[in-house]
Amino acid sequence: MNNTKLFFANDYSRGAHPNIIKRLVETNMEQSAGYGTDTFSQAARESIRQACGCDTAQVEFLVGGTQTNATMIDAFLKSYQGVIAATTGHISTHEAGAIEANGHKILTLPHQHGKISPQDLRNYLEDFYNDSTHTHMVMPGMVYISQPTEYGTLYTKQELQQIRAICHQYQLPLYVDGARLAYALASPANDVTLKDLAELCDAFYIGGTKCGALFGEAVVIPAPNKIPHLFTMIKQHGALMAKGRLLGIQFGELFKDNLYLQIGKIAIECADKLRKALQDKGYTFYFQTPTNQIFCILNNEKLKELEQKVAFSFWEKYDDQHTVIRLATDWATTMKEVDALIAVL
Amino acid sequence: MNNTKLFFANDYSRGAHPNIIKRLVETNMEQSAGYGTDTFSQAARESIRQACGCDTAQVEFLVGGTQTNATMIDAFLKSYQGVIAATTGHISTHEAGAIEANGHKILTLPHQHGKISPQDLRNYLEDFYNDSTHTHMVMPGMVYISQPTEYGTLYTKQELQQIRAICHQYQLPLYVDGARLAYALASPANDVTLKDLAELCDAFYIGGTKCGALFGEAVVIPAPNKIPHLFTMIKQHGALMAKGRLLGIQFGELFKDNLYLQIGKIAIECADKLRKALQDKGYTFYFQTPTNQIFCILNNEKLKELEQKVAFSFWEKYDDQHTVIRLATDWATTMKEVDALIAVL
Amino acid sequence: MNNTKLFFANDYSRGAHPNIIKRLVETNMEQSAGYGTDTFSQAARESIRQACGCDTAQVEFLVGGTQTNATMIDAFLKSYQGVIAATTGHISTHEAGAIEANGHKILTLPHQHGKISPQDLRNYLEDFYNDSTHTHMVMPGMVYISQPTEYGTLYTKQELQQIRAICHQYQLPLYVDGARLAYALASPANDVTLKDLAELCDAFYIGGTKCGALFGEAVVIPAPNKIPHLFTMIKQHGALMAKGRLLGIQFGELFKDNLYLQIGKIAIECADKLRKALQDKGYTFYFQTPTNQIFCILNNEKLKELEQKVAFSFWEKYDDQHTVIRLATDWATTMKEVDALIAVL
Amino acid sequence: MNNTKLFFANDYSRGAHPNIIKRLVETNMEQSAGYGTDTFSQAARESIRQACGCDTAQVEFLVGGTQTNATMIDAFLKSYQGVIAATTGHISTHEAGAIEANGHKILTLPHQHGKISPQDLRNYLEDFYNDSTHTHMVMPGMVYISQPTEYGTLYTKQELQQIRAICHQYQLPLYVDGARLAYALASPANDVTLKDLAELCDAFYIGGTKCGALFGEAVVIPAPNKIPHLFTMIKQHGALMAKGRLLGIQFGELFKDNLYLQIGKIAIECADKLRKALQDKGYTFYFQTPTNQIFCILNNEKLKELEQKVAFSFWEKYDDQHTVIRLATDWATTMKEVDALIAVL
Repeated sequence: MNNTKLFFANDYSRGAHPNIIKRLVETNMEQSAGYGTDTFSQAARESIRQACGCDTAQVEFLVGGTQTNATMIDAFLKSYQGVIAATTGHISTHEAGAIEANGHKILTLPHQHGKISPQDLRNYLEDFYNDSTHTHMVMPGMVYISQPTEYGTLYTKQELQQIRAICHQYQLPLYVDGARLAYALASPANDVTLKDLAELCDAFYIGGTKCGALFGEAVVIPAPNKIPHLFTMIKQHGALMAKGRLLGIQFGELFKDNLYLQIGKIAIECADKLRKALQDKGYTFYFQTPTNQIFCILNNEKLKELEQKVAFSFWEKYDDQHTVIRLATDWATTMKEVDALIAVL
Repeated sequence: MNNTKLFFANDYSRGAHPNIIKRLVETNMEQSAGYGTDTFSQAARESIRQACGCDTAQVEFLVGGTQTNATMIDAFLKSYQGVIAATTGHISTHEAGAIEANGHKILTLPHQHGKISPQDLRNYLEDFYNDSTHTHMVMPGMVYISQPTEYGTLYTKQELQQIRAICHQYQLPLYVDGARLAYALASPANDVTLKDLAELCDAFYIGGTKCGALFGEAVVIPAPNKIPHLFTMIKQHGALMAKGRLLGIQFGELFKDNLYLQIGKIAIECADKLRKALQDKGYTFYFQTPTNQIFCILNNEKLKELEQKVAFSFWEKYDDQHTVIRLATDWATTMKEVDALIAVL
Repeated sequence: MNNTKLFFANDYSRGAHPNIIKRLVETNMEQSAGYGTDTFSQAARESIRQACGCDTAQVEFLVGGTQTNATMIDAFLKSYQGVIAATTGHISTHEAGAIEANGHKILTLPHQHGKISPQDLRNYLEDFYNDSTHTHMVMPGMVYISQPTEYGTLYTKQELQQIRAICHQYQLPLYVDGARLAYALASPANDVTLKDLAELCDAFYIGGTKCGALFGEAVVIPAPNKIPHLFTMIKQHGALMAKGRLLGIQFGELFKDNLYLQIGKIAIECADKLRKALQDKGYTFYFQTPTNQIFCILNNEKLKELEQKVAFSFWEKYDDQHTVIRLATDWATTMKEVDALIAVL
Repeated sequence: MNNTKLFFANDYSRGAHPNIIKRLVETNMEQSAGYGTDTFSQAARESIRQACGCDTAQVEFLVGGTQTNATMIDAFLKSYQGVIAATTGHISTHEAGAIEANGHKILTLPHQHGKISPQDLRNYLEDFYNDSTHTHMVMPGMVYISQPTEYGTLYTKQELQQIRAICHQYQLPLYVDGARLAYALASPANDVTLKDLAELCDAFYIGGTKCGALFGEAVVIPAPNKIPHLFTMIKQHGALMAKGRLLGIQFGELFKDNLYLQIGKIAIECADKLRKALQDKGYTFYFQTPTNQIFCILNNEKLKELEQKVAFSFWEKYDDQHTVIRLATDWATTMKEVDALIAVL
């Protein structure tokens, strides 16, 4: 890293929130049982159940997002089934074929800024079952969506309810990838709470890696025993930590005193300030986002200039003269850094 | 955990060596590039190359053992090939079918206290290629061994050289699972160095999880570019950390000032003292081991008595009256704990 | 089957061409070696090599199309690679996820009446390698096309050459699914011969099931030893016949005295007559095709009327008032049947 | 094939029983629906249901044995489960890793002349569930046996009942590979009927390829709807014939007028005569078999002599001076051929 640059390239550039580090230090020499059966993990599970308002939920801790998606999708699907997802879904694009490596097709739907529409989902399912050759095709076996999406957008509660209703009708589990969930929960534009997710989803995961933990994702399965032998499936996917306590300790801290929401709030406030400044300075947004990711269109001259002083992500080429870039804030972004970036813009 | 018990059940009950914790704290707020391209990881790779006496080695950091084995074996094998391993190999028994989940058969050989013999390997390969129906069978595509083995035993350098020669003749990559490698390297009975492994293996991994790290395994591939596109394969197996720095920082510490060897030495000295005491007190060993795991045969009365005060692992039933238990020391075991255990025995 | 209906629903409704049946009867009590090592298969391979003008080609006989595609694609791809295909490719739609079941993603391109365009292919590959995150994505590992396509259309020789050039540049094997190849070869609109395919493809298959055989597809791999251990891969995919002679006998007949071309010619002549009659009667084609499949748009009233007397395939709903149907001819269709259908239309 | 040799190498060297050939010829120009929905297949399914005394059984026709085993085992198992089989089971040895290619481990038990013992099965299962680490292991998910076994031996009805009881206790489907079932059913030593199989198994297949058909295996699943979406799984495994009628026609003949039993009877009578002659001439059997396969130990001199005149299978090296060979009879073996072989012996 060139430390002289302002860093807004992603939300996983630092270690962990200081509370987590502090707790890892404090507990380091305690001896605990392995594979997630330790008391730290038990307590963290209980905290998450409470935060989700779901006493009976099964909570499992895994290490990273691709691993979690691959494990859970493989756990839900039968061998002849595929998973419905947006063409822009993380599993469709940036997981190196992990879902297919487990034998499952991703059945893609078009996206609107990262979201699938309930209507497209319904049409797809109706067309599938109306097609007389559908028994020669991959049967839709579950629905995957992300909250916030890979484009930083949010499903409304109403949209989730509509999707849920369709899933219910076709007996499809609904699974939500919450890699950046803290930044959804803290957005003023959001009306979907953890309790709503626990009511509407068959499983979802609360992202740690991009939301203040060193690593780790917490899978919540509201209906207990929904997936028998999940422990063995996690092990088979190489996703079971010997020192499972590390995940328990981290999520224990994230769900103590609303830290997880607090982490999201910082990132959103920084992003909001940045968004306002960009707008004031006449920058064009690729599309509007209410979370911690901002997508701007720059002309190539400005792009080169900015590259000298700021680390950001190239998103895609807009046209020959313009480029879309992504700026991301996170739990550790400071207003001072935002001000410095605004000064540069 | 019942903290009133003496804990000798495994080698992954605590956090990490204090040096590692200290460094994680120091570096926590630094910003770094993701996915193992950070400077911590670069430096740790270089340290490992030096320790292995192999300037050109490719070094990759993964999170855990099952994940590492599954990824590397899948990377080495063609779809029509299997991996030769002892019936007691970790991949054969306790990885929940992770190798088969990737489509590969494990071709098992009998074991002698966890080891395969060069002669059995040669016979297997000769028989395979002499069998006129072998094109209907799974072709042996690589050899997997563990150092130390799952039974705490060690391959000698001569045995490794013999196995290597056979592998060479049949063009089979040789892969060594070093989940507990620190405890081999530090054993007075050992004559296989890291440099030997780098000379004799096509790939091996240096275990972190059971040897003083919070988690993490360092794969060493002596010949560079042996496995094209390994990065994508690691990603596909859900084994790529966003914050790859965490692995770089940990292995950087483990390979600074010989810490890795030091960690092994502590465990071996504790185990040696314990072994001597057991022998003096007339305990029967299931078989002799020169590393950090001790296998004892107890009668069931003694077993029940010990259970009250000591946490250990049940290994297997010996007969109706006796049971085999495993006692393990690690980098954090103290002589005081050993003395307390001896007092109880 | 309702035998009172005229049958134009598909090209696999009858048994096999009489020559094939005759030869199966003649040879029935001869004893032969198993698994395709018999003399019938050897001779058939030689005939196919001659027809393809390629002395050195490896020729393998498999049972059906899905099986052949799944086996060959798995044989060509590495575990981290996917296969590029049209969204309408048979592997993308009607093979029940057989490609993904082997661990490989299908990387879909848009289609023009079943064909991919060289330009779309080039753009896809350029975009992929220009994307800085492409190592997190599924690497394109081969190209799959069908000749004729699932929509009955044909690639021109020039198009194939362009696709070939792009494949060459990116080191991608080009594989052609020839399930209905006889009907391409016999079309007056076609300028791609078997010899061209042998020059331009890394592998292609000559369809038997839909072109006059009881079953069977002949894979041609022009460069010998391109795919080591293919025999074992065929066995692993459950695609190796014990009585391989059955495939040898059938393809021996298909490639004796140009029978394969003759079979195609009959179907094309019937289809051409039918096409002309449809046009004369004012029917609307969904799009034009030069092979044995005809796609017509009918209003729903006409559809119901036709259903009483003719067996055809529903293709898709065109709008609320209209439906696209498919009419197919084959090696056994007679002009008398065509005339009867024309009378009904 | 060297036609001057007497051929006893296997049971799939000729085409099909003349009745089958005759019927294929008669029906060749009839048009039928595809994919096994034709009337020939419907009628054959009904005949098989009657032969099995099981009105409700689901009957599916597949092409070959490896394909059938791979499809059915994949259909029965969850992703975290493996299949229990003898080390000598066909799936364990000669199916090129087809089971593992679908992601499933084969959990092998020792064999007694090809058979697993109920006691070994029970011990294995008890040990598995008594092992405190079993959730890290592959869970046994079904039992695979062959009748007759790969060694030509037979399970008694009592043994099957015992195995069934254990399977029932552990909720494991019992699946029987009947590749050579005709030769079991016709053996005087056999006391297991088709009706018994339908009562005791969750699925079994009636072999056609080695029992007088050109190809084809009929899977019988006594409890209907035991495996939802099996049709799609068959398609995904590349095991669905477009011209499914071919399987229906063949099995229709095999189950007309007891032809299947008749076919077995011929082979057994020939084998019995051969066995008696071998015994009279002082040959040593490797072990006794009551079906169509005979395993003899020859000294190497005799072996070389016999090779000149007879085609047989090498089974395995017995010691430096002796070799085990296999002689097989089938539905088409004549007493004249047996007499000729006896004269040579």
